[in-house]
Amino acid sequence: MVKTDEVLKRLDGFTIEIPSWGFADTGTRFGKFFQDAAAATIDEKFADAGHVHALTGCCPTVAVHGLWDFKKDQSPREVAALARRHGVRVGSINPNVFQDQQYKWGSIANRSAEIRKMAADHIIESVRIGQAVGSNVLSIWLGDGLNYPGQGDIIARKRWVAQALKAVHATMPAKMTMLLEYKPFEPAFYATDIADWGMALLLCKAAGKQARVLVDTGHHYPSVNIEQIVAWLLDEGMLGGFHFNDRKYADDDLTMGSIDPYQTFRIFHEIENHRFRTGKDPALAYMVDQSHNLKPKIEAMLQTVDMAQQLYAKACLVDRKELALAQGREDLVASESIVRDAFLTDVRPLLAQWRKAHKLPIDTMAAHRESRYEARAAAERRACHGPKAGGGYA
Amino acid sequence: MVKTDEVLKRLDGFTIEIPSWGFADTGTRFGKFFQDAAAATIDEKFADAGHVHALTGCCPTVAVHGLWDFKKDQSPREVAALARRHGVRVGSINPNVFQDQQYKWGSIANRSAEIRKMAADHIIESVRIGQAVGSNVLSIWLGDGLNYPGQGDIIARKRWVAQALKAVHATMPAKMTMLLEYKPFEPAFYATDIADWGMALLLCKAAGKQARVLVDTGHHYPSVNIEQIVAWLLDEGMLGGFHFNDRKYADDDLTMGSIDPYQTFRIFHEIENHRFRTGKDPALAYMVDQSHNLKPKIEAMLQTVDMAQQLYAKACLVDRKELALAQGREDLVASESIVRDAFLTDVRPLLAQWRKAHKLPIDTMAAHRESRYEARAAAERRACHGPKAGGGYA
Amino acid sequence: MVKTDEVLKRLDGFTIEIPSWGFADTGTRFGKFFQDAAAATIDEKFADAGHVHALTGCCPTVAVHGLWDFKKDQSPREVAALARRHGVRVGSINPNVFQDQQYKWGSIANRSAEIRKMAADHIIESVRIGQAVGSNVLSIWLGDGLNYPGQGDIIARKRWVAQALKAVHATMPAKMTMLLEYKPFEPAFYATDIADWGMALLLCKAAGKQARVLVDTGHHYPSVNIEQIVAWLLDEGMLGGFHFNDRKYADDDLTMGSIDPYQTFRIFHEIENHRFRTGKDPALAYMVDQSHNLKPKIEAMLQTVDMAQQLYAKACLVDRKELALAQGREDLVASESIVRDAFLTDVRPLLAQWRKAHKLPIDTMAAHRESRYEARAAAERRACHGPKAGGGYA
Amino acid sequence: MVKTDEVLKRLDGFTIEIPSWGFADTGTRFGKFFQDAAAATIDEKFADAGHVHALTGCCPTVAVHGLWDFKKDQSPREVAALARRHGVRVGSINPNVFQDQQYKWGSIANRSAEIRKMAADHIIESVRIGQAVGSNVLSIWLGDGLNYPGQGDIIARKRWVAQALKAVHATMPAKMTMLLEYKPFEPAFYATDIADWGMALLLCKAAGKQARVLVDTGHHYPSVNIEQIVAWLLDEGMLGGFHFNDRKYADDDLTMGSIDPYQTFRIFHEIENHRFRTGKDPALAYMVDQSHNLKPKIEAMLQTVDMAQQLYAKACLVDRKELALAQGREDLVASESIVRDAFLTDVRPLLAQWRKAHKLPIDTMAAHRESRYEARAAAERRACHGPKAGGGYA
Repeated sequence: MVKTDEVLKRLDGFTIEIPSWGFADTGTRFGKFFQDAAAATIDEKFADAGHVHALTGCCPTVAVHGLWDFKKDQSPREVAALARRHGVRVGSINPNVFQDQQYKWGSIANRSAEIRKMAADHIIESVRIGQAVGSNVLSIWLGDGLNYPGQGDIIARKRWVAQALKAVHATMPAKMTMLLEYKPFEPAFYATDIADWGMALLLCKAAGKQARVLVDTGHHYPSVNIEQIVAWLLDEGMLGGFHFNDRKYADDDLTMGSIDPYQTFRIFHEIENHRFRTGKDPALAYMVDQSHNLKPKIEAMLQTVDMAQQLYAKACLVDRKELALAQGREDLVASESIVRDAFLTDVRPLLAQWRKAHKLPIDTMAAHRESRYEARAAAERRACHGPKAGGGYA
Repeated sequence: MVKTDEVLKRLDGFTIEIPSWGFADTGTRFGKFFQDAAAATIDEKFADAGHVHALTGCCPTVAVHGLWDFKKDQSPREVAALARRHGVRVGSINPNVFQDQQYKWGSIANRSAEIRKMAADHIIESVRIGQAVGSNVLSIWLGDGLNYPGQGDIIARKRWVAQALKAVHATMPAKMTMLLEYKPFEPAFYATDIADWGMALLLCKAAGKQARVLVDTGHHYPSVNIEQIVAWLLDEGMLGGFHFNDRKYADDDLTMGSIDPYQTFRIFHEIENHRFRTGKDPALAYMVDQSHNLKPKIEAMLQTVDMAQQLYAKACLVDRKELALAQGREDLVASESIVRDAFLTDVRPLLAQWRKAHKLPIDTMAAHRESRYEARAAAERRACHGPKAGGGYA
Repeated sequence: MVKTDEVLKRLDGFTIEIPSWGFADTGTRFGKFFQDAAAATIDEKFADAGHVHALTGCCPTVAVHGLWDFKKDQSPREVAALARRHGVRVGSINPNVFQDQQYKWGSIANRSAEIRKMAADHIIESVRIGQAVGSNVLSIWLGDGLNYPGQGDIIARKRWVAQALKAVHATMPAKMTMLLEYKPFEPAFYATDIADWGMALLLCKAAGKQARVLVDTGHHYPSVNIEQIVAWLLDEGMLGGFHFNDRKYADDDLTMGSIDPYQTFRIFHEIENHRFRTGKDPALAYMVDQSHNLKPKIEAMLQTVDMAQQLYAKACLVDRKELALAQGREDLVASESIVRDAFLTDVRPLLAQWRKAHKLPIDTMAAHRESRYEARAAAERRACHGPKAGGGYA
Repeated sequence: MVKTDEVLKRLDGFTIEIPSWGFADTGTRFGKFFQDAAAATIDEKFADAGHVHALTGCCPTVAVHGLWDFKKDQSPREVAALARRHGVRVGSINPNVFQDQQYKWGSIANRSAEIRKMAADHIIESVRIGQAVGSNVLSIWLGDGLNYPGQGDIIARKRWVAQALKAVHATMPAKMTMLLEYKPFEPAFYATDIADWGMALLLCKAAGKQARVLVDTGHHYPSVNIEQIVAWLLDEGMLGGFHFNDRKYADDDLTMGSIDPYQTFRIFHEIENHRFRTGKDPALAYMVDQSHNLKPKIEAMLQTVDMAQQLYAKACLVDRKELALAQGREDLVASESIVRDAFLTDVRPLLAQWRKAHKLPIDTMAAHRESRYEARAAAERRACHGPKAGGGYA
């Protein structure tokens, strides 16, 4: 087993970006169950994120959403200042080109050159916001796709997407990274325009040198070996980061590790394998992308951050020299056990040590509940925004 | 091959119920793309349904939704009269116990006896509506379930559901059938309270003699053999009917047969096998449950009805005596071919014959487009309801 | 958390049956990779099983296979004596009606009454073997099914299976339990005659009062919630036991917990929920059914037994009173955490305590390796059976 | 609709390669059901293939298998001569590096440099065989992979595979194409070394300019949009050909179109889209890879060839100019209908016309049955090879 000190040091370098929309009311197509304490404004979102960072000490940045978090009349710098006031920084910038009515037939994969331009311009606007707020990560997810066989030309759309990404890439400053997300289903059901990591990789190559693939753990069909994809992308120098969440079937956006923690552990294991192999830090953006609507928003986030640290620490425990030796003699049971025993190890004491050293509460959830932050937020926000309604199925 | 006359006769007995919500704006959790011509009121829904029935001649009834289609101040009989005015009848009554905020933790599976009662009362209200409007089908789908391991007690919930269904059943008139739908995922993601046909069957047995299982073709995991489930339920006397739609992965609510028409054909094939085996008409409710948001609503419905008739007619073409002979000599290739060749047969000429005989337009889609019904509805409804908005992701 | 003493006591009652075929050479349709130490005779299998039981102290019985383990000229009592000589007992009797050429078109689902009788007689022979050797568990898995649409009549086959099971059941002594396994695919690919737990349950009801459903964890499509099925079957009094293994996709027969340990833990959690709810011991047969061909056979078995004990012990740790309280206040995060924290707890120290108390080696794998049992067995068996070959793909 | 003449012309250019192993006894891991008429020698395989080609007129080449079809003492030219004698030619050469005992831990992904060389040499031997017999297609499928997390180093294996493919590629004559197959599961269950098209594409790029991806339709998880992958590979100039078969769940190797004919049709539709878009013939190898063990071998092949021609002809019927117009006005229902109506069209009369023009039997299955070829082959082969046995599960 790897020494505790090394794992503690590794944890120092492990930060997790949390999404502003993770604090807002979200739901399913059957409707939303509203929470009084859910954040409605960017100020409230940063406040919640700052609270989470204060408790966990490892969530210094917040992913923001082009459409929802930046108002027309608000300068991006103001938003950045708002974040700082709550003790966090603006992280990745996420354009939104899937919600507005003009995107009914797609955004940058739309047949209409005009709408493609509109969408590309919105993404380029996100590049500018990034520059203004000091964020170097542009994180793109498209809702584009086809709902029925025959609806559109798969290859024409592929080319339109490549073209737009290239145009966006050309506007990026040298330090900025474009992250490109893939997803095989939803909201388009017959074919999504960036369905898997192979398509994302080809589009990144087409876009430019600063484009990398973003792996959302929920965006795979069941049984797909996600850690193998991660290992390949790392080896190709094409992995940019993660959107973490869990799911039993589709992209359920459940909290990380809630359904299959061993799978997420194996992803971290492959990342640490890469570090061991190359001696280099892969420089990945670890981001949470969960938005489920039953758990209290902040509690869900704290739970995920805690689980992320646990699973990452477990992966750091794997003795890779021993593993290489066992693999070298084709000792299958020993090789597997070295990996699995790291997973079976209870790292909560180790995490407690890390938190103590950083003067953080040992039990973040308990500290949050004791703080009564949620009740206060609920009261204030209810008073401020009034009753919520709307958004049913039909 | 079976003679054309027999298939035509069989088509006479094949009617399809269309859902009122199939004419309304629906979407995904990422938002809705609104249609000007989408129906917003029960009057508009019946008008659209009447238009579909006038064109197709095989959709005499409309499934209605407790929550959306019956206003507090409106007598059910008025609604029924409205339907008649548009040339259709009220079909199955669908209570809605999944959308309101009180159902956050479930409806009849809720831990709270009070909320369970509220939900059961709403369902019983649907029984009363059915009686008032002359409908004999109560069609129940629950959104109840658990989102995370440990969230609730699976068996306590099972018993609460059984109890409530029994209470509802006790209020049903002798002629009414309770249809119970199952679904393995969404909107609950870890466990749904009625996850598969086995659970639905046990709950039907617990509810009472008039309860039957409803098969929604989209409510199965990939690779599940749906036609086998249909055959078993028929043989057990426990199949009540269908919600037809298609999907590439999850419950996408795409139009029927749009992804895998052979699978839907095989469902009809098993129904006809049952008729052949028993000499009896299985008396099933064939209902459409599609609600996808890109196709124009009425066109989507016409397409589905046409496809349903085609696939059903193909299944009627199977020469079951020949099939039994081929199966009897374990002639695998011949057995399969008899079934498949019926599917490969183009039944559009046969359908044209049927429509001609019933003085219906041969090409229902063309007739609809020529009628300019949609443009008129769009103009009127836009004028009446104004611009639409709302319902985004976060 | 539950007290250590209670978990230790619970472990005393937790025994796992291991399969004789788990020590034999097996493979995939692409061939077998042979192991010198693999057992070829029933004597060798019992020797291996006895070795596993001596090391683990919790595998007193061995599942045997009608076709492979009982020769025509050998009395079952001799086989039982052989088992005893190696320190184990004969456990469940597994008839084999899937391998012989006459079963090409099925065994008890075969159209031919003659072959159905042949298959039923073979199963009845297993009942007699069970009586002779003092085993009370008859464990049935069928390979029957259809490979193509149209190949056979699903319902005729359903009835033939029910009929045969009823006939077998009638020959069983009062203490014997019939376990009936379901599987949705393989070796039949279009439809298997007992595809899911619903079908198995209906067939058990048809067979007689001593029939129960057997859950093989590998016999479900991805995303299916197995623990929910387990909970329902327990509540219906229809669960008989388990075949444990793990899989990434299909029925890969990997060692238990090797892919998704949390899922198996949740199965045990539901069993313990049942005990908590009813105050009764569910009396289930816990059996291993793994047969993968790369891990050394005995090591694979030791690994599985260790994992089974760990996962079971973790499930016993859940404080069900606390859980009920948290669920009672709809405290979703706390409820989930109570369950998950039990899983995250490292129970290896606890298991070490249990083994010490039972004078067993703490590290069973190390003890096995030190014993050099495998090398000895390999040498002896190689000498005895000679080189192995055969069984390729085409 | 496209004119009949054009489709007939297109059919002239559509040939299908059939596999020698498709005439041999194959099975599942649970055993084989032997057929008396199954071919055991390369002579018998060519005889069967020749018979199929004589009946269908579109199967001039036969895929051969390095290990099974070429004996050490037999010159490849002799094998080629044998093929010619039966009226067919040798097609793609398929090395076999998955069956022999030395490949237990992999072939060209094996940690042992010695075994990697052995495997690469065997593949290079296939290159030489190809040159000797005038075949320009080397078709590679690996069984390599990992069965458990931790078993091996995913990236070390990736590099070994790339290295070996590059070495093989270097020995290929300029006209030869290397086809590289991917598969996400089986016979390795945790991770296969070439799991999806993205990995195959990267390895092809690493191997050299003459390497292309081979799509086996059974080698995808359920719900994966295969036709989209096909379209992308075509657009990237990286598609080499197909292995056709069908499946309900895993890689069942059922006859083509037997489960989901619409999906296979859509693959052809994308190929024809590519032709329409580029004006060029994509020059793909259409190969059958089915090996299921219940249908009589030759009948299964005739059925597949007939289905392939039907589905291809249906795809040729799509009026791509009309389709582009409908897509151009975002007329979703019309676009879909143009594609689907081509599928719904019965092309059997058209195929009859094509066969008549080529002086082939209209009903190839009937002609085969009347020929009594199978009974003769069965008698001869039974006499020659004697009774068959072996290859059970454990």
